[in-house]
Amino acid sequence: MAKAPILTPRSEDFPRWYQDVLTKAQLAEGGPVRGTMVIRPYAYAIWERMVAEVDRRIKDAGAQNAYFPLFIPESYLQREAEHVEGFSPELAVVTIAGGKELEEPVVVRPTSETVIGEYMAKWIQSHRDLPLLLNQWANVVRWELRPRTFLRTTEFLWQEGHCAHATEADGREYASRILHDVYRDFMVEVLAMPVLVGAKIPEERFAGAINTLTCEAMMGDGKALQMGTSHELGQNFAKAFDISYQDASGTQQLCWTTSWGVSTRMMGGLIMAHGDDAGLRVPPRLAAVQAVVLVVKDDDEGTVSDAAARLHRELLDAGVRAQLDDHVATAFGRRATDWELKGVPLRIEVGPRDLAEGRAVLARRDTGEKLPMDVAAIPAAVPDLLEVIQTGMLEGALAERERRTVVCSTVEEAASAAADGFARVPWALLDASALERLGRDALTVRCVQTPDGDVPSSLEDPDNVAIVARAY
Amino acid sequence: MAKAPILTPRSEDFPRWYQDVLTKAQLAEGGPVRGTMVIRPYAYAIWERMVAEVDRRIKDAGAQNAYFPLFIPESYLQREAEHVEGFSPELAVVTIAGGKELEEPVVVRPTSETVIGEYMAKWIQSHRDLPLLLNQWANVVRWELRPRTFLRTTEFLWQEGHCAHATEADGREYASRILHDVYRDFMVEVLAMPVLVGAKIPEERFAGAINTLTCEAMMGDGKALQMGTSHELGQNFAKAFDISYQDASGTQQLCWTTSWGVSTRMMGGLIMAHGDDAGLRVPPRLAAVQAVVLVVKDDDEGTVSDAAARLHRELLDAGVRAQLDDHVATAFGRRATDWELKGVPLRIEVGPRDLAEGRAVLARRDTGEKLPMDVAAIPAAVPDLLEVIQTGMLEGALAERERRTVVCSTVEEAASAAADGFARVPWALLDASALERLGRDALTVRCVQTPDGDVPSSLEDPDNVAIVARAY
Repeated sequence: MAKAPILTPRSEDFPRWYQDVLTKAQLAEGGPVRGTMVIRPYAYAIWERMVAEVDRRIKDAGAQNAYFPLFIPESYLQREAEHVEGFSPELAVVTIAGGKELEEPVVVRPTSETVIGEYMAKWIQSHRDLPLLLNQWANVVRWELRPRTFLRTTEFLWQEGHCAHATEADGREYASRILHDVYRDFMVEVLAMPVLVGAKIPEERFAGAINTLTCEAMMGDGKALQMGTSHELGQNFAKAFDISYQDASGTQQLCWTTSWGVSTRMMGGLIMAHGDDAGLRVPPRLAAVQAVVLVVKDDDEGTVSDAAARLHRELLDAGVRAQLDDHVATAFGRRATDWELKGVPLRIEVGPRDLAEGRAVLARRDTGEKLPMDVAAIPAAVPDLLEVIQTGMLEGALAERERRTVVCSTVEEAASAAADGFARVPWALLDASALERLGRDALTVRCVQTPDGDVPSSLEDPDNVAIVARAY
Repeated sequence: MAKAPILTPRSEDFPRWYQDVLTKAQLAEGGPVRGTMVIRPYAYAIWERMVAEVDRRIKDAGAQNAYFPLFIPESYLQREAEHVEGFSPELAVVTIAGGKELEEPVVVRPTSETVIGEYMAKWIQSHRDLPLLLNQWANVVRWELRPRTFLRTTEFLWQEGHCAHATEADGREYASRILHDVYRDFMVEVLAMPVLVGAKIPEERFAGAINTLTCEAMMGDGKALQMGTSHELGQNFAKAFDISYQDASGTQQLCWTTSWGVSTRMMGGLIMAHGDDAGLRVPPRLAAVQAVVLVVKDDDEGTVSDAAARLHRELLDAGVRAQLDDHVATAFGRRATDWELKGVPLRIEVGPRDLAEGRAVLARRDTGEKLPMDVAAIPAAVPDLLEVIQTGMLEGALAERERRTVVCSTVEEAASAAADGFARVPWALLDASALERLGRDALTVRCVQTPDGDVPSSLEDPDNVAIVARAY
């Protein structure tokens, strides 16, 4: 008799499968205030790895970390008209503090362009102060009507970069550099997610931006997820906060600003892009635990536990993020299923029978393959095998995206193809009535690209291609 | 004619000197909402180093990082009577969100015992789930009447550990382990601050704790600063949130909980403990920039810049956190003063005259000594020299604290000695009227210790010593 599955199968009910993974793999649960979340240790350790990898790339791109306040005076938001219009409906407002009603209510930051703009204006005097490249890791709050853990939560964790540049070209170049060298590089190389890059259409831009660049990924149900964005803000915030500098000729000039962010939403993307009916699958370069050494069961002398502990130490010495599971009081099958649920890339199963022959079994989470190997050879083999798994996961995700992407030449074709994946359709076809037609099927333009898949230099270019899909 | 000092001398006005250091070294400034702060990049990089060092020790002590929500329902705080009484006056309350008045207002966390207690209760079933050792890095909000940057701000950054244990002894042991192995070890070994450890008197305990352990440091003006605390919460929160487990015999038992934290307040402590009239002094093990290679001025061939750049690379290769300053357009004197202000432990000055003889000058920030050295010998010498500086700073701080500590045998002696430093006085002398007498001079008991300076096993022990001081 087949065991009842631990998770709802993805093909049966994808949203319920997602919820099951969150709960059963002990990743996250809802907080006491509607739309908030609790990130449990195993998921938080993955987030810490994301932070370390993104942070390193941000620093390589020349930005410096800083920290700005959680509370922003309400009046700051009102200085940029589109910005306040975009964010007002989502604000959380503190009206009472220290036992008294506040004279001016303060909003809990939904994003920090306004407060950082105020300080940029103070700190920038001369062209020698530019570019000013700042980033912060912080929590932000946007009151969500339809919250979903990691994907859309009232409070989330993110980094937000905020930069001031001397010219429009400098701003444009830096927004693009962050999108490509920080976000896409991280997502492709570490998350093993083959994201598409492109520009958002005007209706989908950040509130206050003149251009929004995006990384878009395909989830296991064929829907798109916006994984990160990089905005050219033009001189909108520079005007609102008087961010200006004296140029080399002594003339006062307005700056051009940019902002860019990725968030805990990427955790949701990771789960939905790589997960399968057995649970999460974490790519090795990201994994907080890359390999778990599992004692199948021990003998009376403790031979198996000793061998497993030795192997665990040797893996650590080989630079592998390894963990030892010698909790033999719990049945082996249950533990193996749990590590599978948690998506650890490699399980190394050490049991008495194999060990008597000097062997252990390497079980790959990505393919399910089981490979017996001489114990002595394992520490040297694992780093290479982890790279094979990493590459395989990226290739698998790419093949799946290509399988579900259809090149279309009419709006109706696009509407049909996007029901199950991505439709590539000439951007020139998508006038207002076409967008409205797609909208009836809950389809949106995820991004506009050049024919070879890069960010277009102008939305007007007649060769541009639109990616149409359902989206989270 | 002597130059006007950049900073107010410490002896003239210590609080103004502190404010001057914050501003002139570009460490931090006030935020737009009263009592909040902006942490600028140079200070934030030091905070990141603090976080890395503390986080490593927390993980070594077996705790796992997680993340709990910023917003807590008002009703949660009310479940523990002393806790709500302690924190109510300082709360910031969100009453409007998503454009509507909330049915139940939510507070912005001042600390997270309550919300984490709620989840501990869900996650703990059996004695096998204990101890549950959690930590989070987060921002918290306490509305401050007399805010001061880093020391007491409306919003601050911190880590808060929250643990559940099976027995009182387990909780006591873990609270002590965190105090000694995480906090004291970090403060002594990395911050070069010889903190005193001890127990708080009942009046000074955390709201809801049965015992509060503390690390107390002496600042440059002889006042004390509480640098970190570790609390035994008894069963107070376990009762309020029903955090219980089934023991090995099948009986349901209440847990014993602990909590512990250090914050950006340590940045203030660092400045006030080690700073001098020329600015900040950062201990090498903490410093984000341990050594700066300064081009004094260049010749037409760029010989000096080339040599400095080579030296910079060699220092990086030697594992030194080095930075290159070749901004020769700015006068050397001004740059040297600025690095001094920022407290970089070692300046390596590379100028044409010395370089012609194959030498550069090592300038120690701690002692002001200038040491000419063959350029070729510098990369190998710097790591050792940084350790000498580290040790020297700790020894200097210890000598200064001992110089300003007086062993007293009466309350009046203590009151007099504590005007300028720490008074050590028999704890048995300090009855209610004595505490009231000290309070009239703004003196408090910073902690109670055993005669040899450790945490007392009981406040009742007749040998206990009280440390009396003014405090921030």
